[in-house]
Amino acid sequence: MFNYSKREKLIKPSAIRELAKLIQDPDIISFAGGMPAPELFPLEEMAMVSSDIIRKNGGKALQYSATEGLLDLRKIIANRMNRFNVSCTEENIIITNGSQQGLAFSGKLFIDEGDVIICENPSYIGALNAFRIFNPRIIGVSMDENGMLMDELAKTLKEYPQAKFIYTIPDFQNPTGVTLSAERKQTMIKLSEQYQVPIIEDNPYLELNFNDGISYPIKSYDKTGNVIYLGSFSKTLCPGLRVGWILAPQEVVKKYALIKQSVDLHTNTLSQMEIVEYVSRYNYDHHIMAIRDLYRARRDTMLKTMAAEFPDSIHWTKPQGGMFIWVTLSETMNATDVFNKALEQKVAFVPGDSFFPDGNISNCFRLNYVTMDENRIIEGIKRLGQVLKGDEVRNNV
Amino acid sequence: MFNYSKREKLIKPSAIRELAKLIQDPDIISFAGGMPAPELFPLEEMAMVSSDIIRKNGGKALQYSATEGLLDLRKIIANRMNRFNVSCTEENIIITNGSQQGLAFSGKLFIDEGDVIICENPSYIGALNAFRIFNPRIIGVSMDENGMLMDELAKTLKEYPQAKFIYTIPDFQNPTGVTLSAERKQTMIKLSEQYQVPIIEDNPYLELNFNDGISYPIKSYDKTGNVIYLGSFSKTLCPGLRVGWILAPQEVVKKYALIKQSVDLHTNTLSQMEIVEYVSRYNYDHHIMAIRDLYRARRDTMLKTMAAEFPDSIHWTKPQGGMFIWVTLSETMNATDVFNKALEQKVAFVPGDSFFPDGNISNCFRLNYVTMDENRIIEGIKRLGQVLKGDEVRNNV
Repeated sequence: MFNYSKREKLIKPSAIRELAKLIQDPDIISFAGGMPAPELFPLEEMAMVSSDIIRKNGGKALQYSATEGLLDLRKIIANRMNRFNVSCTEENIIITNGSQQGLAFSGKLFIDEGDVIICENPSYIGALNAFRIFNPRIIGVSMDENGMLMDELAKTLKEYPQAKFIYTIPDFQNPTGVTLSAERKQTMIKLSEQYQVPIIEDNPYLELNFNDGISYPIKSYDKTGNVIYLGSFSKTLCPGLRVGWILAPQEVVKKYALIKQSVDLHTNTLSQMEIVEYVSRYNYDHHIMAIRDLYRARRDTMLKTMAAEFPDSIHWTKPQGGMFIWVTLSETMNATDVFNKALEQKVAFVPGDSFFPDGNISNCFRLNYVTMDENRIIEGIKRLGQVLKGDEVRNNV
Repeated sequence: MFNYSKREKLIKPSAIRELAKLIQDPDIISFAGGMPAPELFPLEEMAMVSSDIIRKNGGKALQYSATEGLLDLRKIIANRMNRFNVSCTEENIIITNGSQQGLAFSGKLFIDEGDVIICENPSYIGALNAFRIFNPRIIGVSMDENGMLMDELAKTLKEYPQAKFIYTIPDFQNPTGVTLSAERKQTMIKLSEQYQVPIIEDNPYLELNFNDGISYPIKSYDKTGNVIYLGSFSKTLCPGLRVGWILAPQEVVKKYALIKQSVDLHTNTLSQMEIVEYVSRYNYDHHIMAIRDLYRARRDTMLKTMAAEFPDSIHWTKPQGGMFIWVTLSETMNATDVFNKALEQKVAFVPGDSFFPDGNISNCFRLNYVTMDENRIIEGIKRLGQVLKGDEVRNNV
């Protein structure tokens, strides 16, 4: 009966979300998923803000609102981005349903079938899937501990000068936890200008920086308007409200607004007002500081336990912020095999293959260190260490 | 710098939303737009529900949640649809960001470039724009006071048996206010089965029925799973939360879920819990009854004033529910000219041309009778009557 469109075949399930169904047992120590620690959600504050807004201004809060988002929220975001050396006003901002919607819109706005897009290798699964529905050719560029390799990017741009965009998660990347160095951020801007290929900068973890000082986004180095920046409240306030933003030149914001109009009219009005009121009434910076402190402690615990429990042949990243550690096994090992054995020990993570555009590297996996408390981190990593040692022994036989 | 996709050219602004910018002056009596009456939003109830949920269950309410939507909400919707003789369970339901998202997803799931889709002539602008981005050929089928003409639909299906779907708003249609008769609903089902062309039934106004008894949706006559039904809380509770649903065979729900996953992960968790709690704790039926009573009274006032104030040459529909009256001027008159003159008198409506897939009929316009109070309705219709009489006089000179 149902005769679907051709693109229906291009719509892939997210490996992470499919995995989530396997690990619903609450006894499982899960380092999979990308959920922020719920114990830091500002419940009392959000409860007060929410009821106050509905009582005082509910006729507006529960009504249809502007496609671009509420002006007050767009101003707050613009001011906040100014702190990160991004020059912009509310006219450069459109509110989206989380930054995932910004990714989907970017695919829709830029990608025709067969177009080349460039990203890190590995990259965020949700972005790859959002883009794949438009049937692009996705070229991954290798990374080291300072992010995407600029000589390889230059080579790729030379080979594909018609590429539609460079997609990057420069700070505390998902899945690797790696940050693109300031020097490389500036090089990427230069290459973008030279080849006239825009950058889509996805930066949901920017404020989850564990060190002193500010990590400046690529957008802060952008003088010619080549960078489209995607931001989110999901990691610094809460994801359930689904509020993110796109920051772009005004002409591009207008295009995104037309897409949003046709797709879902506008983002939840009440949620936008809740965030405006929360940020105005409480100390949002202090709240983010508390998240950083907790996440830093959990990262330390996980890294320390990994150093003690994991066999020597295994390597991993040392993230300076964000939520993830990336583990690389010896080349003969398979992360999905390890996953299956770990699951028997009630420990879970995300096997890495689906983070690679080509899906061709099978000896990596991603650990989330923020959702579990420190005791469970220690216990889970110990069990995982046992699995890895057992696996390694077998490989050496 | 920005080299957009080919589809970017297909993304059209909504005439209604563009109009909204013209009529921001609060002195304007606006019968444009499709906003529910905010004075009926259950503010105190929603304020209580909202703060209670965040306090008691905020770790869940503010966290990521399932792509398909919350199970409790899907059950509530399934039960409610059962009342309308629709046999379904929660497995047939996926939550969307308003039914606009259901429209956009349906375009994505079914339409390839050049495919034929069939709709009422006129139809909902937002649906036309959601579909146009996929570059279909849209064929409008004429209507009378009982909705789409079934002999014309049969002829159209015979001419285009490969049509991807029939899109219809059967009850209290936007923009005409007309309802497809029960007999024609059954005929449409038969034609859908005969030609194996599914129906997309968009029914946001179903419960806003001004008469006694129930208006049964097309889906209630569907025995073979040919109908995909789109519903919404926007018109019966509030639109600001952006919560709607798609009701479809399970295999199709799974396809929609994959789309939603790639597009925005899931709908706002808190909003879904707010609706579950509101419906569980309060008398939602009673609330809808109050909306119906208010809207019926406003319809009566508008119709009565139109009968007294509009010249005889002008015709209009007599809606039995919903939010809109459709006005047809004599063929020599132009609704956009009338709009411009009305705006000088600080009265607004939506000229009808953009509701027609071909945009070729220019002597109709849409009036919303629910957003303004009765005094403003009377005053606005009087002014509009003056404009129409003036216009008519000039046409007769």
